[in-house]
Amino acid sequence: MTTLGDSFHVYDTTLRDGAQREGISYSVSDKIAVARLLDSLGVGFIEGGWPGALPKDTEFFARAAAGDLTLKHAQLVAFGATRKAGVKVHEDQQVRALLDAQAPVVTLVAKSDRRHIELALKTDVAENFAMVRDTVKFLVDEGRRVFLDAEHFFDGFAFDPDTALRTLESAVEGGADVVVLCDTNGGQLPLGLAETVHDVVARTGFRVGIHCQDDTSCAVANTIAAVQAGATHVQCTANGYGERAGNADLFAVVGNLVTKLGLPVLPTESLAELTRVSHALAEIANIAPDSHQAYVGSSAFAHKAGLHASAIKVDPELYNHIDPETVGNGMRVLVTEMAGRASLELKGREFGIDLTRRPDALTNVVRKIKELEAAGWSFEAADASLELLLRDELSELDAPPFTLESYRVVLDHQKDGGIVSEATVKVHVGGERVIATAEGNGPVHALDAALRKALRPHLSWVDSVELNDYKVRILTDQHGTDAVTRVLVESTDGEREWTTVGVHGNIVEASWLALCDALVHKSLSPSQA
Amino acid sequence: MTTLGDSFHVYDTTLRDGAQREGISYSVSDKIAVARLLDSLGVGFIEGGWPGALPKDTEFFARAAAGDLTLKHAQLVAFGATRKAGVKVHEDQQVRALLDAQAPVVTLVAKSDRRHIELALKTDVAENFAMVRDTVKFLVDEGRRVFLDAEHFFDGFAFDPDTALRTLESAVEGGADVVVLCDTNGGQLPLGLAETVHDVVARTGFRVGIHCQDDTSCAVANTIAAVQAGATHVQCTANGYGERAGNADLFAVVGNLVTKLGLPVLPTESLAELTRVSHALAEIANIAPDSHQAYVGSSAFAHKAGLHASAIKVDPELYNHIDPETVGNGMRVLVTEMAGRASLELKGREFGIDLTRRPDALTNVVRKIKELEAAGWSFEAADASLELLLRDELSELDAPPFTLESYRVVLDHQKDGGIVSEATVKVHVGGERVIATAEGNGPVHALDAALRKALRPHLSWVDSVELNDYKVRILTDQHGTDAVTRVLVESTDGEREWTTVGVHGNIVEASWLALCDALVHKSLSPSQA
Repeated sequence: MTTLGDSFHVYDTTLRDGAQREGISYSVSDKIAVARLLDSLGVGFIEGGWPGALPKDTEFFARAAAGDLTLKHAQLVAFGATRKAGVKVHEDQQVRALLDAQAPVVTLVAKSDRRHIELALKTDVAENFAMVRDTVKFLVDEGRRVFLDAEHFFDGFAFDPDTALRTLESAVEGGADVVVLCDTNGGQLPLGLAETVHDVVARTGFRVGIHCQDDTSCAVANTIAAVQAGATHVQCTANGYGERAGNADLFAVVGNLVTKLGLPVLPTESLAELTRVSHALAEIANIAPDSHQAYVGSSAFAHKAGLHASAIKVDPELYNHIDPETVGNGMRVLVTEMAGRASLELKGREFGIDLTRRPDALTNVVRKIKELEAAGWSFEAADASLELLLRDELSELDAPPFTLESYRVVLDHQKDGGIVSEATVKVHVGGERVIATAEGNGPVHALDAALRKALRPHLSWVDSVELNDYKVRILTDQHGTDAVTRVLVESTDGEREWTTVGVHGNIVEASWLALCDALVHKSLSPSQA
Repeated sequence: MTTLGDSFHVYDTTLRDGAQREGISYSVSDKIAVARLLDSLGVGFIEGGWPGALPKDTEFFARAAAGDLTLKHAQLVAFGATRKAGVKVHEDQQVRALLDAQAPVVTLVAKSDRRHIELALKTDVAENFAMVRDTVKFLVDEGRRVFLDAEHFFDGFAFDPDTALRTLESAVEGGADVVVLCDTNGGQLPLGLAETVHDVVARTGFRVGIHCQDDTSCAVANTIAAVQAGATHVQCTANGYGERAGNADLFAVVGNLVTKLGLPVLPTESLAELTRVSHALAEIANIAPDSHQAYVGSSAFAHKAGLHASAIKVDPELYNHIDPETVGNGMRVLVTEMAGRASLELKGREFGIDLTRRPDALTNVVRKIKELEAAGWSFEAADASLELLLRDELSELDAPPFTLESYRVVLDHQKDGGIVSEATVKVHVGGERVIATAEGNGPVHALDAALRKALRPHLSWVDSVELNDYKVRILTDQHGTDAVTRVLVESTDGEREWTTVGVHGNIVEASWLALCDALVHKSLSPSQA
């Protein structure tokens, strides 16, 4: 619990609304892992899914009830709908499943826009109010805490405020203690939304929550504006995952509430975990982290302009809206064409290399980087290659773990249309000369496979390194000379990620350089043995 | 021009502030292509870069002035700084370079936060005001329209409102006609920002613009809130590209201004082009389009099954905040703007193909494009391949000028470090079977050289086609299956340029497909004989 106790709710719906994002498909074990990470942050409520409607969600709640998921901070929430029109609440199977889930909290979704009640639900407003009141009361009588998600509230309130407000009233009459205003189609903007929230709070005195979708790119802003207008319960998803453009991003909402509005909505020690948890949740969702995400993205505090680097060294606070370490992130200086000594010194500090004591080495590295960048290299996104360059210049590198003698790649587009890529490498490793041949989908894949085959018997860690991403950029600016290819390779060993770069007129050689750097960089790390 | 004329400015800074995004590196030709696309949308101003500070930007303005870039709607803007402290304005080389760029508009960046003036600029406020006034006046006297970007304005105004406001005053005294309040570190939230904008407008009566960064995930919301508070000039970047978390996304800002606030800030016909232009600009930046981007993302109107499915069928307007076609988007998951019948009809017209009379062919092409796009193809930036597909479907294509039997590419990284790429093609052309072998810098270059060598004796126009640009994107979205490579080839015959696409698991085969399309497309043109 935070110092705010129950007076402010951080309510996470990654496992229910977040799972609506195209491409996400959580297993039950994934869901348990997600819930544990969210709980470790100290969110107040974790909406686990819709038991009864989705078999995986039913199983998730069953496993949680059986003790597979013990939460330290959060309360588990089952999501579901009110009873059907014309059905007695205790006879409604879907409502029954919400009880069976055994979660202490239930969030019910209900329609609050008269057009939806009449056109989609095909009933009248009076029956809608009864459905809400009956279902809330039934669950409260069974010992549950109940929140109401008022679907399409803002459009409904604009169209027919009376129906919208009476939906909320019906829930409160039944015993709901938070009514959540949902911008279901995501069409709101902050100033208008804040006005409505303020209006509802003033007219009803109810405890109001907010649930925003990102269809105007304003979900985070709308959530914050709602809090400023009186909402004390925010529904978010990790990394903004959700249907269509997504939901309000938990990390940006929490970052803003804590660092901008001064509301301690999470335990103090949790804020520095935001970046780590965000990336771990991306991992579980099998979605590449958004490098440009506010607060937690790897670029969120990355400065490119060489222009500013010297001023940043004087006082980083002049250029960052918060201290990146507050949210567990770090400032990065991107080394570009405009790189100067100041940016490289800062960069060295990131690697744990103190360059201030080595002015000569610094001069040499700056010169070398300028030469390489003039030839098409770019270290902006290739920290691992830059680190190798720095350490090499400081004579901190041992002999490389392997050296190349030669390679050959053959590509055959055969008469029958079949395509074969085959590579042979000759390398020296562990005092031996090794020759290995392998096939792949393409020339680089074949080369990578042949190299690993050659190294495997001598360097056992080789297979712990996986190629995560591979980017190719053809640099055609150099008119009159041959085009140059720049390859970026992102590797991972399951614990960390690093990026290397290779540049050459030949795309395969450029890829080879980046692949080699990736393995050499891994060989530096203490865990490689 | 829109119906709003000069009274509201959509000001794009993709080419300057957007280029600060980690990973973006525009060539001069890229910059010209970006400017053309933005101009086609009807934005009022295109900030092209910082002439004098960056050689590529200097070249861009020189090429624009030489007639390589003719704008229909927009005015070109040169960005730069005020004169240095203690230097006479007409002796300042950087200011001189702004004039030399020959752009009709200049945007000057100036510090408006006293701490930045004293700590980073190391001068006093009086000299800062003089720097602003002198530089604006000098440029205005030379016939330029001048806008002022007041850097770190919101922090500066909070810290010392007098210095912040007097910076604006100095610009207006010099003759600037818009003062742009910049949230340079991106730390603002909408309600507070709107209050400041309102306050500045009320106190000064100046024409105010807004420039927001996305560090709180509120750049779009902040921009809209500023307009509601009186700003009449919005600075944005395509897809929100920019330093750190990025800038306010042009497409979301425009979408919100037009569809939510009813401000016709772009020509009416442009709105339906937002999605296409957004994707084409992502292609040029070599960044995968964000599928969850508001308005223009491929998922922005994608509904996952469940709760809403049946009701959406009844009335989609109940579930979408706008009609997706308003912004050229569609309601299905894999629908891009190309898959719509209407846009394909329009596209056909561009090629001189009347598809309105061929509804069956249109249906087939739409289906075929959807299948190809599901497999990783993209025709957004490959008009020439799309034209071939359309003509093929209409049976308008003669037999292709050549057919492939097989090819082989061999790459040797030799013992002495030398690298040789050699390709052999076997093709049928002009009734003969031809075998040709050639070398190149890399596998694709060698293949291209061998193909030309084989075709040259039969197709005299082959050498008039030059490869202008070559882009590669690895599509790693398909987890569990092999990654797919998409290659875009831009060709020229000195008169016109055309782009073709190839997709395959093997990069060389993908390149081969795009190269072949490029030559086949040339063979269609009347000038090929």
